[in-house]
Amino acid sequence: MPSTTTQDNTERGYVIPMGGEVEKVNKPIILERFFELSGGPKANILVIPTASELTETGPDYADLFESMGCRSRYIPVDEREDCFKDDIQSALKEATGIFITGGNQLRLSTILGGTPVAKLIRSLNAHGVHVAGTSAGAAIMSEHMIAGGASGPTPRENGVTMAPGLGLTNRIIIDQHFSQRDRIGRLMAALSYNPFVSGIGIDENTAAFIDPNGLLEVLGHGAVTVLDPGELSHSSMANTKPEEPITLIGMKLHVLASGAQYNINTREAYSEK
Amino acid sequence: MPSTTTQDNTERGYVIPMGGEVEKVNKPIILERFFELSGGPKANILVIPTASELTETGPDYADLFESMGCRSRYIPVDEREDCFKDDIQSALKEATGIFITGGNQLRLSTILGGTPVAKLIRSLNAHGVHVAGTSAGAAIMSEHMIAGGASGPTPRENGVTMAPGLGLTNRIIIDQHFSQRDRIGRLMAALSYNPFVSGIGIDENTAAFIDPNGLLEVLGHGAVTVLDPGELSHSSMANTKPEEPITLIGMKLHVLASGAQYNINTREAYSEK
Repeated sequence: MPSTTTQDNTERGYVIPMGGEVEKVNKPIILERFFELSGGPKANILVIPTASELTETGPDYADLFESMGCRSRYIPVDEREDCFKDDIQSALKEATGIFITGGNQLRLSTILGGTPVAKLIRSLNAHGVHVAGTSAGAAIMSEHMIAGGASGPTPRENGVTMAPGLGLTNRIIIDQHFSQRDRIGRLMAALSYNPFVSGIGIDENTAAFIDPNGLLEVLGHGAVTVLDPGELSHSSMANTKPEEPITLIGMKLHVLASGAQYNINTREAYSEK
Repeated sequence: MPSTTTQDNTERGYVIPMGGEVEKVNKPIILERFFELSGGPKANILVIPTASELTETGPDYADLFESMGCRSRYIPVDEREDCFKDDIQSALKEATGIFITGGNQLRLSTILGGTPVAKLIRSLNAHGVHVAGTSAGAAIMSEHMIAGGASGPTPRENGVTMAPGLGLTNRIIIDQHFSQRDRIGRLMAALSYNPFVSGIGIDENTAAFIDPNGLLEVLGHGAVTVLDPGELSHSSMANTKPEEPITLIGMKLHVLASGAQYNINTREAYSEK
């Protein structure tokens, strides 16, 4: 774990997708680890509540991080034009950690996408600022985002809708509320298009802490399901009719409970540290 | 496909688990293939309705197979003592195909288990009689049966209840209504105990035709999900607490739509014939 996390750091920051419904009150171990990683008492955590349409989401998270003992504020970005304001960008540049709340990931992609804020988040993360996001805030993190799709375990043609995301990594596609909303089928459908990436399905109250070297470690109540299509020998996606099941041969699957790890670069899984 | 299917055949019969809700009226391709396999017009299909508590289940299936153009009858086995009756055993010995209906698989295991009927079904299948079963009738087929469990994609300790089944094969564990009832987690939990077997999750209105050489072919509307733990490098089942997620590393997963195949002996999957 790096001891300093300023943006002058040449090491990348962590990317920390969380599966939604993260515990905030009683033993909030996931949010506390993000707080510690971001500098503990010296942290400055910036909350981006854009995905949510509730006015209290931003202040509530900022209050929560402040109650842990660091500085925290939220930036009220509700329209694309907000992303061009100097004070918003200045606030981002002071952060040691950025937290993207849940809500609707299409609000994140349509409002932040292609603006100086999106560019700045990528640049800050590349220079050591940790970026966490829960639910919609987790979905937006990767280059390829799941915008929506069907539930159920069987992957089907038309079973998933993809959109460009923030691009903090292009090695994974993230899905969240994974077990609770039964999303393994749509994640496999997303992977069937192009088996370059690994699929990361995160249960509620569970997080994937991905370090600068691409080592993902699970923390929380549920599991992270990793789908690795790297050795896929066949995908019928190209010639399957709408709504029909997709044949996929040779997918690798890991279920990782708290403490287990997966390297998103080498595609190797480990049962514990 | 063998042209003769008498019990004198030295080749084994097919084992044909179906995922439930199999189409009976409009283009019943799955039941028709079972009818053809059992000899077409020369078939004699015996229906075992024991899993069901509805009195019409047995007669309805017998009528359906007769309407396809062969002989068919059902045996009213409702109590263990029925399994010791000579006429029941005689009826079984005349069959070229045996069809086990849906219902409650624990009725099948508690009523048939350890009786001459169970022994006779195994023996007949070993000598060329095809055995099909839908839903509960599919679950009972393998040596290790899933009796019940939790739904959802994440495997958990206590997430599945196992019981001994009919033992037509010990290479697979079968689950059914797979996509519709969200059972990938409980199937993985079943495999986490002992990765010797492959897990076969069959969607509704879908069947796995397993030939005498162990080659499984998918037929129907949905998919068959194959979980192959043969190269599993870690299962935390032995030291996971009740209800907690199980870490599983190195599971192989195939999703097979109609026409795709899987060899249950060699664990190889094929996209088509």
